[in-house]
Amino acid sequence: MGKPMAKNILGKNFRLAVYNRSRAPVDELASMGAFPCKSPADVAMRSDVVITMLPDEVAVEQVLAGPSGVLEGLRPGAVFVDMSTVSPFFSRRMAELVESRGGLMLDAPVSGSTFAAEQGALTIMVGGPREAFEKVLDVLQAMGKNIFYMGENGAGSFTKLCNQVAVALNLQGVCEMLLLASKAGLEVKKVIEVVSTGAGGSWQLSNLGPRIASRDFRPGFKVSHMRKDLRLVREAAERLGIPLPGTSFASELFKSLDVLGYGSEGTQALYELYERLSETSRNRSEP
Amino acid sequence: MGKPMAKNILGKNFRLAVYNRSRAPVDELASMGAFPCKSPADVAMRSDVVITMLPDEVAVEQVLAGPSGVLEGLRPGAVFVDMSTVSPFFSRRMAELVESRGGLMLDAPVSGSTFAAEQGALTIMVGGPREAFEKVLDVLQAMGKNIFYMGENGAGSFTKLCNQVAVALNLQGVCEMLLLASKAGLEVKKVIEVVSTGAGGSWQLSNLGPRIASRDFRPGFKVSHMRKDLRLVREAAERLGIPLPGTSFASELFKSLDVLGYGSEGTQALYELYERLSETSRNRSEP
Repeated sequence: MGKPMAKNILGKNFRLAVYNRSRAPVDELASMGAFPCKSPADVAMRSDVVITMLPDEVAVEQVLAGPSGVLEGLRPGAVFVDMSTVSPFFSRRMAELVESRGGLMLDAPVSGSTFAAEQGALTIMVGGPREAFEKVLDVLQAMGKNIFYMGENGAGSFTKLCNQVAVALNLQGVCEMLLLASKAGLEVKKVIEVVSTGAGGSWQLSNLGPRIASRDFRPGFKVSHMRKDLRLVREAAERLGIPLPGTSFASELFKSLDVLGYGSEGTQALYELYERLSETSRNRSEP
Repeated sequence: MGKPMAKNILGKNFRLAVYNRSRAPVDELASMGAFPCKSPADVAMRSDVVITMLPDEVAVEQVLAGPSGVLEGLRPGAVFVDMSTVSPFFSRRMAELVESRGGLMLDAPVSGSTFAAEQGALTIMVGGPREAFEKVLDVLQAMGKNIFYMGENGAGSFTKLCNQVAVALNLQGVCEMLLLASKAGLEVKKVIEVVSTGAGGSWQLSNLGPRIASRDFRPGFKVSHMRKDLRLVREAAERLGIPLPGTSFASELFKSLDVLGYGSEGTQALYELYERLSETSRNRSEP
């Protein structure tokens, strides 16, 4: 996601310094006018706004607080914007760290596919000091279409987790519905059309239902990422002391899918797990 | 639902004979031009198309095949249209019964609220012989906006059950999401707005989310009806030999709600069950 987001920032004529572990995207962005840096600290020394988009908390903490990390170069008053999907409690801890070094932090995870990132059409959910939000809003607008200020630090990450709860259960509904439709001998594409028009309609059904019907399991959003996001939801629910039994069950299904080797497929591959659960033949499991 | 549907049929200038167990709706429809009948058999003797809209299978079988039932008065070639939500296997059995008496049957359950029924805007999912469907289409069009022919007998009922699978799991997603949002201290109405714009969006979220946020649990569709529909889904899945674990779990939740006394509230009262599950005080359960 990072590269198309960086391109959109360049496209709005912001001056941009970039760093990435592997060199190729840095070179590509440099050829478009970005300044290539040797480390996160190097980026921070040159920037009023520092943005990270990383796979998990370990990577964020490393890039922020590790050797040659952002904190080593952070300018006074700079805003650190973490757009990774991470735990809201982690976001709050990082915000304290950034503030102790004289900066401000925003947790600003996104919703939307790589395609939405390319189009500058991401949804961005932001938590942190409002003054920091207002300072970076024009940069966020270069990357996203719907930008929401949700409250203090952690509120952006929490909103993203809320979104994933709805996504996971809606998709589970799509898969169970299509399994029923299929085994009932109905014309699956027609069922998708009918249900989409009414109270059973959802983004997941309209967008992933037809892909399941045509057995297209290529990723818009990967199973392995959904597994991670739902683990974050469960950890947050545990800390808040609330039961989310449906989400936990969906979380177990995505874990199954991932360990069965479907991690790089799109989340709609959940349907393949349901098919395995309802196979009449035991051939697959014979030794 | 029956009365507004009957009014829409009258509104399109069809001649209409009506019967109902309690007298008041019959009188009201008679004052608008319908012919009041003394029994289902009496309706059938006067009609080319006979429509039922009843709470459950026991009622449908009674009205169709019981004493003074539809079958006793059925005209040769008449079409019996059952718009109740029932098991597809039950629909098929009733279709055989009707055919053995020289008629044709359609299972044609609906999706949509009482409001949609009043507006003639129901979604109607039809299974049965295509010739019968074509014969009654103009009558169905008086009641519904989106009318789908799904295949042979049972296909209408199966499609309705598919719809309820999606509805139930989407609503469970809404409830778990809003519980998380609420306990995380987020502004719940804003979270609904954010999630609705993206991949977590659904009819259930857009329509029932705001009601939950303002604690409006009045029924659009009742908990007791959802409990019944999900029981039908589970029975159908059992007969087809497919596991629907998420739907079964949602079904248990609606059963809980119903036995706890929430049966006449709207399905969004599922949120109240989640609140009970996460109460920190044990006061309620003290003897």
